[in-house]
Amino acid sequence: MNIKIAYIGGGSKAWARRFMQDLALDAELSGEVALYDIDRPAAERNRMIAERIHAKPQAKAHFRYTVADRLEQALTGADFVIISILPGTFREMRTDVHLPEQYGIYQSVGDTAGPGGVLRALRTVPAYEGFARSIQCCCPDAWVLNLTNPMSILVKTLYRVFPGIKAFGCCHEVFHTQDFLCCVLKEMTGQQAQRRDIYTDASGINHFTWITQARYRDTDLLALLPGFMERYFESGYYEHGSAQQWTWDTFAYGNRVKMDLFRRYGALAAAGDRHLAEFVDRSWYLKDAETVRRWHFGLTTVAWREENQRRLIQESEEMAREEREIPLAPSGEELVRLIRGLLGLEVVVSNVNLPNRGQMPGIPEGAIVETNCIFTNGFADPIVSRPLPAGALALVRRCSDNLDLLDEGIAQRSRDKILASFRNQALCSGLTLEESEELFDRMCDAVRNADFPI
Amino acid sequence: MNIKIAYIGGGSKAWARRFMQDLALDAELSGEVALYDIDRPAAERNRMIAERIHAKPQAKAHFRYTVADRLEQALTGADFVIISILPGTFREMRTDVHLPEQYGIYQSVGDTAGPGGVLRALRTVPAYEGFARSIQCCCPDAWVLNLTNPMSILVKTLYRVFPGIKAFGCCHEVFHTQDFLCCVLKEMTGQQAQRRDIYTDASGINHFTWITQARYRDTDLLALLPGFMERYFESGYYEHGSAQQWTWDTFAYGNRVKMDLFRRYGALAAAGDRHLAEFVDRSWYLKDAETVRRWHFGLTTVAWREENQRRLIQESEEMAREEREIPLAPSGEELVRLIRGLLGLEVVVSNVNLPNRGQMPGIPEGAIVETNCIFTNGFADPIVSRPLPAGALALVRRCSDNLDLLDEGIAQRSRDKILASFRNQALCSGLTLEESEELFDRMCDAVRNADFPI
Amino acid sequence: MNIKIAYIGGGSKAWARRFMQDLALDAELSGEVALYDIDRPAAERNRMIAERIHAKPQAKAHFRYTVADRLEQALTGADFVIISILPGTFREMRTDVHLPEQYGIYQSVGDTAGPGGVLRALRTVPAYEGFARSIQCCCPDAWVLNLTNPMSILVKTLYRVFPGIKAFGCCHEVFHTQDFLCCVLKEMTGQQAQRRDIYTDASGINHFTWITQARYRDTDLLALLPGFMERYFESGYYEHGSAQQWTWDTFAYGNRVKMDLFRRYGALAAAGDRHLAEFVDRSWYLKDAETVRRWHFGLTTVAWREENQRRLIQESEEMAREEREIPLAPSGEELVRLIRGLLGLEVVVSNVNLPNRGQMPGIPEGAIVETNCIFTNGFADPIVSRPLPAGALALVRRCSDNLDLLDEGIAQRSRDKILASFRNQALCSGLTLEESEELFDRMCDAVRNADFPI
Amino acid sequence: MNIKIAYIGGGSKAWARRFMQDLALDAELSGEVALYDIDRPAAERNRMIAERIHAKPQAKAHFRYTVADRLEQALTGADFVIISILPGTFREMRTDVHLPEQYGIYQSVGDTAGPGGVLRALRTVPAYEGFARSIQCCCPDAWVLNLTNPMSILVKTLYRVFPGIKAFGCCHEVFHTQDFLCCVLKEMTGQQAQRRDIYTDASGINHFTWITQARYRDTDLLALLPGFMERYFESGYYEHGSAQQWTWDTFAYGNRVKMDLFRRYGALAAAGDRHLAEFVDRSWYLKDAETVRRWHFGLTTVAWREENQRRLIQESEEMAREEREIPLAPSGEELVRLIRGLLGLEVVVSNVNLPNRGQMPGIPEGAIVETNCIFTNGFADPIVSRPLPAGALALVRRCSDNLDLLDEGIAQRSRDKILASFRNQALCSGLTLEESEELFDRMCDAVRNADFPI
Repeated sequence: MNIKIAYIGGGSKAWARRFMQDLALDAELSGEVALYDIDRPAAERNRMIAERIHAKPQAKAHFRYTVADRLEQALTGADFVIISILPGTFREMRTDVHLPEQYGIYQSVGDTAGPGGVLRALRTVPAYEGFARSIQCCCPDAWVLNLTNPMSILVKTLYRVFPGIKAFGCCHEVFHTQDFLCCVLKEMTGQQAQRRDIYTDASGINHFTWITQARYRDTDLLALLPGFMERYFESGYYEHGSAQQWTWDTFAYGNRVKMDLFRRYGALAAAGDRHLAEFVDRSWYLKDAETVRRWHFGLTTVAWREENQRRLIQESEEMAREEREIPLAPSGEELVRLIRGLLGLEVVVSNVNLPNRGQMPGIPEGAIVETNCIFTNGFADPIVSRPLPAGALALVRRCSDNLDLLDEGIAQRSRDKILASFRNQALCSGLTLEESEELFDRMCDAVRNADFPI
Repeated sequence: MNIKIAYIGGGSKAWARRFMQDLALDAELSGEVALYDIDRPAAERNRMIAERIHAKPQAKAHFRYTVADRLEQALTGADFVIISILPGTFREMRTDVHLPEQYGIYQSVGDTAGPGGVLRALRTVPAYEGFARSIQCCCPDAWVLNLTNPMSILVKTLYRVFPGIKAFGCCHEVFHTQDFLCCVLKEMTGQQAQRRDIYTDASGINHFTWITQARYRDTDLLALLPGFMERYFESGYYEHGSAQQWTWDTFAYGNRVKMDLFRRYGALAAAGDRHLAEFVDRSWYLKDAETVRRWHFGLTTVAWREENQRRLIQESEEMAREEREIPLAPSGEELVRLIRGLLGLEVVVSNVNLPNRGQMPGIPEGAIVETNCIFTNGFADPIVSRPLPAGALALVRRCSDNLDLLDEGIAQRSRDKILASFRNQALCSGLTLEESEELFDRMCDAVRNADFPI
Repeated sequence: MNIKIAYIGGGSKAWARRFMQDLALDAELSGEVALYDIDRPAAERNRMIAERIHAKPQAKAHFRYTVADRLEQALTGADFVIISILPGTFREMRTDVHLPEQYGIYQSVGDTAGPGGVLRALRTVPAYEGFARSIQCCCPDAWVLNLTNPMSILVKTLYRVFPGIKAFGCCHEVFHTQDFLCCVLKEMTGQQAQRRDIYTDASGINHFTWITQARYRDTDLLALLPGFMERYFESGYYEHGSAQQWTWDTFAYGNRVKMDLFRRYGALAAAGDRHLAEFVDRSWYLKDAETVRRWHFGLTTVAWREENQRRLIQESEEMAREEREIPLAPSGEELVRLIRGLLGLEVVVSNVNLPNRGQMPGIPEGAIVETNCIFTNGFADPIVSRPLPAGALALVRRCSDNLDLLDEGIAQRSRDKILASFRNQALCSGLTLEESEELFDRMCDAVRNADFPI
Repeated sequence: MNIKIAYIGGGSKAWARRFMQDLALDAELSGEVALYDIDRPAAERNRMIAERIHAKPQAKAHFRYTVADRLEQALTGADFVIISILPGTFREMRTDVHLPEQYGIYQSVGDTAGPGGVLRALRTVPAYEGFARSIQCCCPDAWVLNLTNPMSILVKTLYRVFPGIKAFGCCHEVFHTQDFLCCVLKEMTGQQAQRRDIYTDASGINHFTWITQARYRDTDLLALLPGFMERYFESGYYEHGSAQQWTWDTFAYGNRVKMDLFRRYGALAAAGDRHLAEFVDRSWYLKDAETVRRWHFGLTTVAWREENQRRLIQESEEMAREEREIPLAPSGEELVRLIRGLLGLEVVVSNVNLPNRGQMPGIPEGAIVETNCIFTNGFADPIVSRPLPAGALALVRRCSDNLDLLDEGIAQRSRDKILASFRNQALCSGLTLEESEELFDRMCDAVRNADFPI
């Protein structure tokens, strides 16, 4: 299988490195990976790292890595396009995440919903409008895998600009919840299973997807939860480590938000608690630092992200300079599996983000929804999900409606509609009309650049 | 036309009196009105008042008024059933309206949305379940006109219990907005028109219906609003009196909320500002007394309602005892017109509340929506409304979803679902999970009676 | 009310004359009627006739009639556009109606469904594509009233080319069925009513619309039909004359098809039997001349149409030359009423053809359906119809699907799709694949001209 | 994995034998198979055959076969229920297939659509109503796999009577079309693939399912068809043997109907030509014996079926008596794979028949449609199919509407509705109203028994 993969954001630290490892480990694939990044040195570093990876004896695939000067150069002839960019810099992200704190709005992530999500959308969508046009021009038949947040609005943008695009959005949050369910299975029945052994229904929008049914063989996993929660609700439980890990690891959480939502709505919200908290009224789980602590997660600061970024860049440089060992092991991500599925090498079922064409009842056609999907032989077709319980659906629909409103607003460059979406964010509840408008304007002013849509 | 009308809540002060007048003035109708009320003396008073009305020379209709001992007696043989009851007493309403103030939630009406609306639903739906069963049994072909709030959930209840019922909900809030538009027409163009001369599209849910287009002949009325608002937004404007009337009349308002929503969403919310404010985040127009004043409306207190009720009862007694003159003039309400339409005496178009079967795009089938409807010769068929702007639709859908969740919760007697709907009310935004649960429980405890659903 | 009406096909004999009379009788309207016709002398004749009409003392409206040189001239400034053209000549119609007889296909009208309907669509749609473009250019806000057949596909074409058009299709067939129901009422109960006194639900596609409920006051008119049919099914019954009128009048019929369909499907097909027979398998009512006679209607020949046309032209000429009296009485048509409604002079309810946006359950969005509609103050909004019985819906859906396929085929100039629609006509059932293709090609060859779409 | 499988129709010759073989070959399954049949000796024979199969060294599964006295006994405790019955006897089937020939209606199968399909439904649905009730009572959580024809209406019946049933309908016709596509691939590109290596979209109703897209890796299989047809359209092509096999094998066909439909509609009908021909106007492919021959398939006679049945029974008896070798090899059927999927032993994608809940656009919710579906860990969830081309959709919708009408008719025991569905069958086109009614009545009279619904 000789394929060309264009990687937009090819200087990416985290995602690209994992992808390069998984790709190198696949014995059936070969071809070219064209890295494109506005930070060309970062792409060059990744190219060098890739070469080192492929030089290892365990590397089975044959891939040539190139760095493209221009986007169109990377795209031309591509069979697959991966988009994983960091929209703007941490300066803008500091605005997204921390400026709203002056209005009492605390965000644990700040890249999807809430004021941060809206602002991030505003400055990222114009770039995606360009990507869609370039893809339509250079490689209209390529499969486009988006990894960037805010996921839903960016996938929507790709389809809005180029309706014939074959794009979907990939996210690993549901995987972690599946890992969590495997832990539940083990704790309650002693059975061991990997997340690909179980099956979960999935429906919702990215970072606010819900599992309504989950089974391992004949075991109903959600039916185990009440018992599990009796044991672990108070202490919290973390699928990837100690229940206390959230106290020192900004990405960890105790799953208490998830369990609390399950208790209230009868379905399992399938994303990290840091994300979930941002889709509901801010007074529920994000009222203030004390509330957040009580729910056993943390507010990821941009200072932390900057420090982490510095560390990752240093690692990359050291890897590129052969001063640091490069690990080579499966990452647990699904990108390469999805590509294998699309190439017809296997049948893959995974949850992705696609325009609704019937797979999610209760949400309008065309809205970007996250459900299971089958990938094989050039097909990426969604599986019809089970209806969400009415309470959960009401929460999701509010957020989904907001996204559609935001999309319409950006498409029309309508400040009124964008502001209406901003104000209707669950995290903006409780702001007065004046406060939300002032916050919106201050955030826009802080990050406005040449492409800014309003 | 010889008809029987059953009036449940036949001791009603305001609605029944207006209805009896309109009925007496119709030359083509005759028959029986059977009044039923759990407060039988009140029904007796109305019967006496009706007799005095019909004794007047201007009275053209011939109607015999009776007071029924039992509901079934009133219903048997009825062609029309009017339901206009006061759910519970002012003691419960005091809970609905004022207990939430302890949590910072101010309600201008408290009978439709918000904590008050939910509690009022909880204690009224069981009675409506009974009405639906009795109607199914005694007069399944009768037309049922509901006037009681909370309108949407009560109409939904009637259809849930007896799907074949021919019921709809009548409300005059849209009429007042049409009056307002006639004022706009006059102020901006000098043309005089009555509300039945103009035509407005209407779509939404009761008390949160929106007008997306309005015209008088070839004049686009909504296009006049920006100019009108330049002149009157600051001062406010009241269609039935002085712009300052809200300062002394608890039912008056300056339409500033309505104009503000129009500016933000591009459609005209068609209910009194007191109602509209309860369907959006409470910090927008109901944050505190000062905010309410700034928007030129007031919080109707239950103390005022009690005093008003006392006055009305005294009036009724005096009328019944022939110590007070009974006015006899058209009330401006539409009940008798709708009945005339259904009887085939004319073609009537009016806005009512019905299960959605296609008339309102963007809202699920079966949800109770308020749109225009045609009434004639035994037909009450909805007119397909224009799509709401996305921003307005998002606001409406949140409330509509909440109603469907509440309906499901009450039908299943599920505290979890009812609480989820309570907590998701726009007026409950900003409450912590603990606060909303505590408030809910305290309100339930305060009004719980034998029929209370949880 | 000073308005400009553009009349495309302004040389029309039947429709224009009735319209001019109705218009002249309206005291509240005035303005200009711009006649446009590719047969300019015919338009001139109508202008002269109009002047004579307006010179009569009973004429209350003041209208100036002009003849336009070019279409654009007529359209510019128009508030209303009426389209009533004769697509092609009788030479083509001879093909439509009589060539299929060589294949055993008999058509009673041949202008809507069946081979004749498809061919007529093929040669008319290109003209309508032009009309739509001209209207978009010259008078995008004008109301467009289409009278030409094949109605559904022509209205669809207008919306396909100019989605923002304010067009609808008007047809009087339902009116005649309402007249028939008034006869039923009188025969069975002795009550006299005019068709505007009763109300009928209506849903379907043009010339194959169905009435599922009909009432005069509290009388269920469809419930009277079984008794009526006991008396009149055998003999037939004609609402406008003798039950035998079909034997000498090619437009008359005995309503036996309609009654037969009612017996089978439980709803009343609301068009003349000549039309209805063309929407179902040709062996049912149109197998051969004998079958047609047995069902008490006739096959209108093109020879008759030609003769009739000659007579009408002669009448027109005589009227224009003042050699013949011009009658001046209400025609029973609704065009002027609809215009009055749109102008806000009254509230009119009438059945028209519009894209489905919820008014007809069971038919896809966007298909052209005929239902009741309200006309007032610039609104023409459909009323949600009752669901058709499953059997009737299946028949209608087949024809509606065929129309959508034909529309897609013509839009794409795809012979395959057009032929598929042709072959799937109920009147083409029983033809072999070769026969239907041969018939199709022969018909196309016979009428092909410069604009022919394939 | 210890499971209980109830097999209704456990005396089945063809299906049961294949199933028993596949089951015996599965190393991971064990448990009980309870055979139930009104022909108890046939079930006993199958039990003996199963024992002999399981005694073979290649048999890896451990299954105990029992014969149940009563249906309820078989069902109680069942995890899976297979229904594969022969509705009635060949005497009735003789009516289904051959009586319509007196009216010029030739049927190649006669068990799904057309007069034969309707009659078979009439005498089978009452039994399925009983099955549904028994399953609801004895094993409501069991998975129910239906193999019996007429597939759609029987699956619909199961859901109508017991809406919570977990049933689906399995059919191998699409598999054969996938085999055909593998042949196309090989003929045109030289590549060899098995049907599970390729992937095909699928949407439609049973025996009239269509493939709109098909790919093997990056090869678009439908794009190969025009070239393939140039070579093989005239001669025909049979995926399982010689292109002439239809001349001696009543189940064979030359795929000329399929290729012809592809040419006309742009999608590949995915069933044997013998089935496909029964869903379109009878004059297309089934006009008479000569036409059938020209299209390279045959009319399966009931005489042949009787003879075949005799042969199968004799084989069974010989196998049971150990006088004949029992083959033990994978059958190519999917039942055991689907069971394995449901048990969580693998992820299986296969096409099955389920109520539409979004998987097939253009067909009403609740209609039984055949699309791809994923089977794993207790899930059987449909995959959203691609839209059918308008022409093909029109053909399918007509048949689907007919099925829903038939279902409604049988549910209500309404002769009118059943007859309307009968008459609207594509195979009944060209019959007069009298002929179709007479044929219907004669067929009903010939097969009527105690349970007959009308």
